[in-house]
Amino acid sequence: MYDLTDTIVALATPNGEGAIGVIRLSGGKAISICDDVFFGKNLGKQDTHTAHFGTVRDEEGRIVDEVLITIFKNPKSYTGEDVCEVSCHGSPFIIKELIQLFVRKGARLARKGEFTLRAFLNGKMDLSQAEAVADLIASHSESSHDMAMKQMRGGVSDEIAHLRQELIDFAALIELELDFGEEDVEFADRTALRNLVQKIQGLIRALIDSFRLGNAIKEGISTVIAGRPNAGKSTLLNALLNEDRAIVSEIAGTTRDTIEETLNINGVTFRLIDTAGIRDASDKIEAIGVRKTMEKIQQSALLIYVFDVVETSPEEVAEDIRKIKRDEVSILAVANKMDLNPYTKAESFVSELLPLGQIITASALNNMNVEYLKERLYQSVLEGKADASSTLISNARHYEALQKSNESLNDVLTGLDQGITQDFIAMDIRRSLTFLGEITGEISTDDLLDSIFSRFCIGK
Amino acid sequence: MYDLTDTIVALATPNGEGAIGVIRLSGGKAISICDDVFFGKNLGKQDTHTAHFGTVRDEEGRIVDEVLITIFKNPKSYTGEDVCEVSCHGSPFIIKELIQLFVRKGARLARKGEFTLRAFLNGKMDLSQAEAVADLIASHSESSHDMAMKQMRGGVSDEIAHLRQELIDFAALIELELDFGEEDVEFADRTALRNLVQKIQGLIRALIDSFRLGNAIKEGISTVIAGRPNAGKSTLLNALLNEDRAIVSEIAGTTRDTIEETLNINGVTFRLIDTAGIRDASDKIEAIGVRKTMEKIQQSALLIYVFDVVETSPEEVAEDIRKIKRDEVSILAVANKMDLNPYTKAESFVSELLPLGQIITASALNNMNVEYLKERLYQSVLEGKADASSTLISNARHYEALQKSNESLNDVLTGLDQGITQDFIAMDIRRSLTFLGEITGEISTDDLLDSIFSRFCIGK
Repeated sequence: MYDLTDTIVALATPNGEGAIGVIRLSGGKAISICDDVFFGKNLGKQDTHTAHFGTVRDEEGRIVDEVLITIFKNPKSYTGEDVCEVSCHGSPFIIKELIQLFVRKGARLARKGEFTLRAFLNGKMDLSQAEAVADLIASHSESSHDMAMKQMRGGVSDEIAHLRQELIDFAALIELELDFGEEDVEFADRTALRNLVQKIQGLIRALIDSFRLGNAIKEGISTVIAGRPNAGKSTLLNALLNEDRAIVSEIAGTTRDTIEETLNINGVTFRLIDTAGIRDASDKIEAIGVRKTMEKIQQSALLIYVFDVVETSPEEVAEDIRKIKRDEVSILAVANKMDLNPYTKAESFVSELLPLGQIITASALNNMNVEYLKERLYQSVLEGKADASSTLISNARHYEALQKSNESLNDVLTGLDQGITQDFIAMDIRRSLTFLGEITGEISTDDLLDSIFSRFCIGK
Repeated sequence: MYDLTDTIVALATPNGEGAIGVIRLSGGKAISICDDVFFGKNLGKQDTHTAHFGTVRDEEGRIVDEVLITIFKNPKSYTGEDVCEVSCHGSPFIIKELIQLFVRKGARLARKGEFTLRAFLNGKMDLSQAEAVADLIASHSESSHDMAMKQMRGGVSDEIAHLRQELIDFAALIELELDFGEEDVEFADRTALRNLVQKIQGLIRALIDSFRLGNAIKEGISTVIAGRPNAGKSTLLNALLNEDRAIVSEIAGTTRDTIEETLNINGVTFRLIDTAGIRDASDKIEAIGVRKTMEKIQQSALLIYVFDVVETSPEEVAEDIRKIKRDEVSILAVANKMDLNPYTKAESFVSELLPLGQIITASALNNMNVEYLKERLYQSVLEGKADASSTLISNARHYEALQKSNESLNDVLTGLDQGITQDFIAMDIRRSLTFLGEITGEISTDDLLDSIFSRFCIGK
């Protein structure tokens, strides 16, 4: 269905005025189309990876721009096809004129993600790497950047290839039996087979489990700040945000996140969500506020519980924490207003709260222990991530494919238990393999490719 | 004052997410700074105008991005210095990280227009060409684009060089007399000198006069649509705009002008300004509206007067036109509502209006003669521009310098008339030369350069 015989063109740099803009052409006629309008050199005779200065003229000989054209010959290009990158003055008018000229000369406007789609179809990258290109461009923190970079450079693909190999080896054993089916031989001991499937499932499950962290890193860790009214939640929010804002604005021209409550700690993005105070609602409207707070807590990945160390009793704090506590969500309890020197009282909380979660004494007002709190927030995210270099799944499509693959392996186990015939077991294994293959694109459909690449921008 | 020994760095493409972004470094250490963080090849050993794929890693060995670095060795580069263009993924986060890394490795963030300033200081282009780069990027129509392109390629510079040569030849004659000052000789006949100065002034004045058109093309031709209430002004405005809008939106992603009333005819931009109806104000508020209309008419470069051919008498039309008529501003009178077939009446206008300006019969409703009106609008702009290929001045700084140069030549003429000594005449000639030299930058001060390049973007 995908036509690779035509030559596509699109602006590769962001829209708008700038010193330069880059227009990219890819396809069999990329170089000859450029040559047709370029004056300065014969581009057809130039080596790959060389840049050439000259003018582009339209059909009437009018100079559209002075440009620099860099040539990449197949297969040594992003798409694996002949590619020309036309670096022109960064004027929207000139860019429009140049693209229209290239279209008149035989190029076609590229569809969304079509350059990367061609790179995939030409075997320059697999599907998970192609998806990582979009993630990489959209990444706004060091951790999401590193994760996308690792995926783009084949980290996820390697992991999947490893799993597939294990499964293929397993399938080989079963299918060998199939060949001798009528003789009713068993080459593989059923217990050993079961162990092998479980080992593979262990690997798949580790990847499935990594999605929670991977996705949180990609989207930012949803972190709710909860506590009674006047506990100092907003002061703490400001204390947490202040320093980071200064860093963000250090480099002029950086796109700032419009979400004001975004905090970056050691390269991990936290989305801080302030809430209304928790207390027993005395009227209807207040009850709505409390319900909303509880909803936000339900959706959060991390919880900061703030309390006024002077005004609150250990029992009240324990009661609050019991109310908001959820499985799988870490709670950081912050004993605030330590600037009032309530050290003796603060100690009384420790024994009460220790079993419920972590406790940090702090003064949001004086910035006391705010840095420490950040460190603890960061550590909470890393918890459960044994190896910092291990592969994380951050793509919902991969997550679903892994789950389906795992379910098929459950069917394999059931089949082994029930002693069903090898051909049914082999079918379940192939199904499991298919789901894994969809991640890297060894198995792909036009619908799948459309749904992936239509989310890209034009020019990617 | 300008330090050319350091290496500057900036993003050259527009801010935002895109498939790629290009970071530019220029200066003696551009290549070695890139080499320091680039893994793949030894960039120092590569030829000029070659592109190299590899990874950029930070001090901890972390991969910041996969990039393509193109090398330009001095003097064969935009700035005339060693230049590296780093083409990276178009992610604001990656771009920030890369620029910070280059700065840590010894580059300095470029100031506004500093790349182009260096190109000027290194003799790659003169000042009027450097200014044209900014005009070119900002141009939004074919005519403003062509004007800036011509200036960038040296059109204005050639014209000024020609004027300077004429003046230098003239000065040579005068200064020859100076050498023989005490002998009281006159090598040049005073009448011949006067003729020569007047000839040069004629050339300068042609350039000064071209500013009106040049600036209008650059900024768009301010065109007021005036007429009595219900003459069909807004219908005409819509009829004029309709078709053009469709053309503008043909190419997706083109930045659209936010000024809704912009019309492009054959590549010239018209800024259409609708006005309240002209009539004798019956109350105070209406009087304000009429006064505002008259103000807009005062500021316009072109006037479309619309009248209802059925409801208006030739006398009323003649009265209106007398009211709004201004020297130097063309009026196009549009006899509207011709769809009502009032042909006999329409003829009665011709004799009345012919002495006052042009008359065009039209129906805004049926789109009758709207195309013809556009053609007439376009022709009005070209009027007085004898030669389409002649140089136009579009830069207010050049315009002022030319005027000052011309005034100095007036002083020369006065001096000749009053028979003052050659050394005073020579002084006036040198002053005239200085003003011309400021246009191309043969004469420049730091203040002048600052005021010019501070209007550029960073990265240009």
